[in-house]
Amino acid sequence: MTNAAQGTTGNRQVRLKSRPTGIPQAEHFEIVTVPRVEPAQDEVEIQNLWLSVDPAMRGWVNAAANYAKPVDVGAVMKSYAVGRIVKSRHRNWEVGALVTGLFGWQEWATVDAKVIERRLTDRMLQGLDPSAGLGILGLNGATAYFGLLDIGKPRPGDTVVVSAAAGSVGSCVGQIAKLAGCRTVGIAGGAVKTRLCLDKFGFDAAVDYKSPSFLADLKAAVPDGVDVYFDNTSGPITDAVIARINPRSRIIICGTVAHESWDPPPPGLRIERPFMVTRSRMEGFVALDYADQWDLAFKRLARWILDGKIVYQEEILAGLEAAPDSIAGMYRGENLGKRLIRLAHAA
Amino acid sequence: MTNAAQGTTGNRQVRLKSRPTGIPQAEHFEIVTVPRVEPAQDEVEIQNLWLSVDPAMRGWVNAAANYAKPVDVGAVMKSYAVGRIVKSRHRNWEVGALVTGLFGWQEWATVDAKVIERRLTDRMLQGLDPSAGLGILGLNGATAYFGLLDIGKPRPGDTVVVSAAAGSVGSCVGQIAKLAGCRTVGIAGGAVKTRLCLDKFGFDAAVDYKSPSFLADLKAAVPDGVDVYFDNTSGPITDAVIARINPRSRIIICGTVAHESWDPPPPGLRIERPFMVTRSRMEGFVALDYADQWDLAFKRLARWILDGKIVYQEEILAGLEAAPDSIAGMYRGENLGKRLIRLAHAA
Repeated sequence: MTNAAQGTTGNRQVRLKSRPTGIPQAEHFEIVTVPRVEPAQDEVEIQNLWLSVDPAMRGWVNAAANYAKPVDVGAVMKSYAVGRIVKSRHRNWEVGALVTGLFGWQEWATVDAKVIERRLTDRMLQGLDPSAGLGILGLNGATAYFGLLDIGKPRPGDTVVVSAAAGSVGSCVGQIAKLAGCRTVGIAGGAVKTRLCLDKFGFDAAVDYKSPSFLADLKAAVPDGVDVYFDNTSGPITDAVIARINPRSRIIICGTVAHESWDPPPPGLRIERPFMVTRSRMEGFVALDYADQWDLAFKRLARWILDGKIVYQEEILAGLEAAPDSIAGMYRGENLGKRLIRLAHAA
Repeated sequence: MTNAAQGTTGNRQVRLKSRPTGIPQAEHFEIVTVPRVEPAQDEVEIQNLWLSVDPAMRGWVNAAANYAKPVDVGAVMKSYAVGRIVKSRHRNWEVGALVTGLFGWQEWATVDAKVIERRLTDRMLQGLDPSAGLGILGLNGATAYFGLLDIGKPRPGDTVVVSAAAGSVGSCVGQIAKLAGCRTVGIAGGAVKTRLCLDKFGFDAAVDYKSPSFLADLKAAVPDGVDVYFDNTSGPITDAVIARINPRSRIIICGTVAHESWDPPPPGLRIERPFMVTRSRMEGFVALDYADQWDLAFKRLARWILDGKIVYQEEILAGLEAAPDSIAGMYRGENLGKRLIRLAHAA
């Protein structure tokens, strides 16, 4: 018996305790211990190693219409995770396989094998830590890759502006845009994050939206206007960028972290006339729609990482206890890089 | 000498007297009489027969950034017109030719032949009155045709909602959408216009945005949600429609008549989250970008008119004196159908 299996006859889970109307706080969750479950036919039991914390999880627990049905109150919090199969009753999946999927905020997940989204192979990881499968080689990387390239359609010479630019999606967007020959401008909150944009993620300019001179700083950072805007925030940042759009600009709506609640929709500046005059396009984007093409993106991203053309940053929280407050903390702007929770058994 | 030529040794013009910040009112214009001008080499003199009144003219006189440089104070008001060449010093253009272009709000226009946009041939007009060249077989028809089909991409079974649906663009959009197999819902102001939408333009449903039950009426009119929204208004109408958009909906931003001024941009409800969740697309549109394809649209529109599949309505004002207040009147919602000014010499 391994050490990991010895001390874990129970399964600790983070459950949704009550439904938040805006951003889920620590108080909306509770940690409970339940027995591990033997897999039935076609099921596997997975020992989770890393759990993911994503801005999208806010939408997963809200009652408002979204792109997935909300997590039930009392259920295990939905989340991406990387884990290892410890028991298998499905002929395609062997014990020891490293896998990722929506295994939830818990230590052990007994699920139908269909819930496994993909295998993290050595060939794909190229020596990277398996946690990359939750970030740059997972939803975040796919979001950056397809959102920027398929919706934004950047051309060499374009100015590409990214909000939440130091985050896991934004930092990747900026670096792919750079590879595509664009001038890149990152918008982030505070000196630490704008420094990170410039020094680590190679943005040509970085603007602090918390600064009183934000509007003037943004104007100075985009002397030729904005051709592509990858929007992770909405809010006054977006209003400021839209005031600078060029003819035929493309705006990718990927996230709305600036707003606590969309019920009712928050007020903002109207965009119809600048959009008409410039013939610009705004489009909502969800990376899951491109699931059939993710492998191609991951292959390219892994290659770029190995070649030193793209870097990524992870912020690793320790243990399941960190989970309940982790989403709220991200919306408070605490995190630097892709936020993950590492469980005790992770290598 | 014809009667028309006898009484018109002078040229009456409507000039921009001062620059409005919002919608141009009668007081922003003045009528002056100046001598007619002999055409120089490569110029023609045109006797205007019909002058056009378009919502876009608001933008043509405002100082704010737009898709064309604003009319100078003291200059003849820019407008589309249909006229007949009375003198020509250009070898390609013969006296008597019926032509359209930006000849301005005046009785006689001496212009470089390049200003002529196109010839209104019998083959194109198919027996329709030449004033059609300013509406259904002009900017309005091209706007409806390319905006709906190229940006909106309607599919059979889609629900297509149109604002300012009784207007020259909106009524044409609704009828083309119907030909494309869509369910059509027109939004217009007041009982007369909604009646017109239903009885004359064949919308499947019509909703009065001035009614206190507008939101409920709109909801009832789109039981399957909204796939395409052709927006001529912006404002609360647009907010109400966006609350009902389906996944992958397309919103065409064609006009913004609901707002007097965009400096600063008026407030509205934010749209980022519904756009992200539904993966919807909003795009600004100006029909002039499709000028190289207009002929195809006019050929099809004329065919549909002759076949009784599309009808159009004109509202004809009499004489140049009607011009100064005509734009403001349109923004007050007075007009029914394409607004035109007929000059004394029109047939």
